[in-house]
Amino acid sequence: MKIVVIGSGSWGTALAQTLADNNQDVLLYGVDQNEIENINEHHRNEKYFKGVDLNPDLKATNDIHCVKDADMIVLAVPTIAIEPICKQIDPLLEKKAIIVNVSKGFQPGTNERMSEVIRRTISKDHLSSVVSLIGPSHAEEVVLRQLTSIDAISLKEEDAKAVQELFSNHYMRIYTGNDEIGSELGAAIKNVMAIASGILAGLGYGDNTRAALITRGLQEMIRYGTHFGGKPQTFIGLTGIGDLIVTCSSVHSRNFQAGYQIGKENTVENFLKNNKKTVEGVRTAKIVHDVAKENGIDMPICEEVYQILYEGKKPEHCANDLMIRKLKAEF
Amino acid sequence: MKIVVIGSGSWGTALAQTLADNNQDVLLYGVDQNEIENINEHHRNEKYFKGVDLNPDLKATNDIHCVKDADMIVLAVPTIAIEPICKQIDPLLEKKAIIVNVSKGFQPGTNERMSEVIRRTISKDHLSSVVSLIGPSHAEEVVLRQLTSIDAISLKEEDAKAVQELFSNHYMRIYTGNDEIGSELGAAIKNVMAIASGILAGLGYGDNTRAALITRGLQEMIRYGTHFGGKPQTFIGLTGIGDLIVTCSSVHSRNFQAGYQIGKENTVENFLKNNKKTVEGVRTAKIVHDVAKENGIDMPICEEVYQILYEGKKPEHCANDLMIRKLKAEF
Repeated sequence: MKIVVIGSGSWGTALAQTLADNNQDVLLYGVDQNEIENINEHHRNEKYFKGVDLNPDLKATNDIHCVKDADMIVLAVPTIAIEPICKQIDPLLEKKAIIVNVSKGFQPGTNERMSEVIRRTISKDHLSSVVSLIGPSHAEEVVLRQLTSIDAISLKEEDAKAVQELFSNHYMRIYTGNDEIGSELGAAIKNVMAIASGILAGLGYGDNTRAALITRGLQEMIRYGTHFGGKPQTFIGLTGIGDLIVTCSSVHSRNFQAGYQIGKENTVENFLKNNKKTVEGVRTAKIVHDVAKENGIDMPICEEVYQILYEGKKPEHCANDLMIRKLKAEF
Repeated sequence: MKIVVIGSGSWGTALAQTLADNNQDVLLYGVDQNEIENINEHHRNEKYFKGVDLNPDLKATNDIHCVKDADMIVLAVPTIAIEPICKQIDPLLEKKAIIVNVSKGFQPGTNERMSEVIRRTISKDHLSSVVSLIGPSHAEEVVLRQLTSIDAISLKEEDAKAVQELFSNHYMRIYTGNDEIGSELGAAIKNVMAIASGILAGLGYGDNTRAALITRGLQEMIRYGTHFGGKPQTFIGLTGIGDLIVTCSSVHSRNFQAGYQIGKENTVENFLKNNKKTVEGVRTAKIVHDVAKENGIDMPICEEVYQILYEGKKPEHCANDLMIRKLKAEF
């Protein structure tokens, strides 16, 4: 199989290296000429992985035409770039390909999940199926070949299994699944929880508080996800609680870092003024807020994050407001 | 209500202080004269909380007769001490009391849960009901009044609510529940997972690996717990995933620390030779192994921990063995 990974950022590079480690025919596409030369000539991607030697078999290109005869295309770009990149590659494709989605979030304006965006924008003749490859996986650790387990989720079982076989090795264990809705909703909402977790850490709270946040955050994810047809068990799997834990606990997470700054400064002001990176949870918080309100889904933690990000509420007030709600049964 | 907390260790002290903060009539019982004097005269428990000033209203005693007219007795002792302490206090009790269990593990020999041990050893005339007060809660953070959420679980709803009311305040949020089996089994097994998490950290693995361990560990807890009548949802609550997260991720956890040493040294030898502390997960691993085998419950992570602790298997081999198992669907 010929595989193209689109996006030479951290996750694209780590995934492409995993395929190279497995002796797959893989090419990494990027737009940044420096990154491409860095990979091809020095086997490094210094911008993201300082001092890390990559598999020397990994090759990169800036020629998007490399997708034309690909059997599998991995889209390792921010959610906001999924639609434009699909529209760009669709006319170039010459046969059906498996499109692998690794982004977590919603399409601005339409609120679609990423698999839905891909199905809408890639012609049927060019699409075998969408496989979402998601789970607890910081690129910084995968590139160092740390043990990692994630899910390949597809409505077409044989494509999920193909992705499972292609990526699995002694450090990467892939499980298959078919609950696209549950997996993608969980993975998207967890970024909002990661902002909340960062805020609490920035305010000075510890492990007990974070564990309670993750536990109660999981209940919100389940409420939201099952409302839209996700299976409850999906949320206690790798794309749900697994991804939630890693994003809520790790300094590698941009969403956590954003929250940490906001909590530390007890205001969102500087973050909004100076942030240049893609922090998926910020846009997701707005969409989840709007959709939950429209559908009457109780999301107290997401609501507080929304209030902080969009309504100027002081972070310290949010933590207290969550604690002093009416005492009740857990379930 | 008159409340006695038995056990002047870290958790007993932190819980007693919470009650003192809430202006309850609480007395802390301990056997260590130094600790008692330290609390009564200096409002400190330096052995566990260096430099932390306790609520000056908190009083301690070494006279076990203080339990006689108590309305509520909190047993903050290791699992192995629950039966002897119950046998010691039962003849002293003059009325029905709520007995609050905060220990997590099984009775050696009989494999009973702690609530079962308490019901067996406290006469009916002296027992209103057992309430298990468990969830993600490191004493070191509760004593500093960090936001903490835990469960009060009882077969008698009004007693669970009484405990909820007594302990709740601006930093302690208590939820009620009635799934004693699911809560106690989850809270016990999580100590085995914490040892596994420590081992992986000691071996040098990162956040991805830990998140996968916690996620797969949760599936094992659910398999084991529901086999014996626990409700599935309990395991995604504070006593399940919540407690699992905090114990698997925190340097405060003795179980995690034990595993960390074992992983770091890649052998259990020194740990077994020199450990003097109560590490509940060590005994729990043996019991879970025996019971799971007897009942045909698949517990691959617990099995590897058992192999390391009791059969001399090298930790590094266990991590690999878990990764290279047959590829499959997640659920």
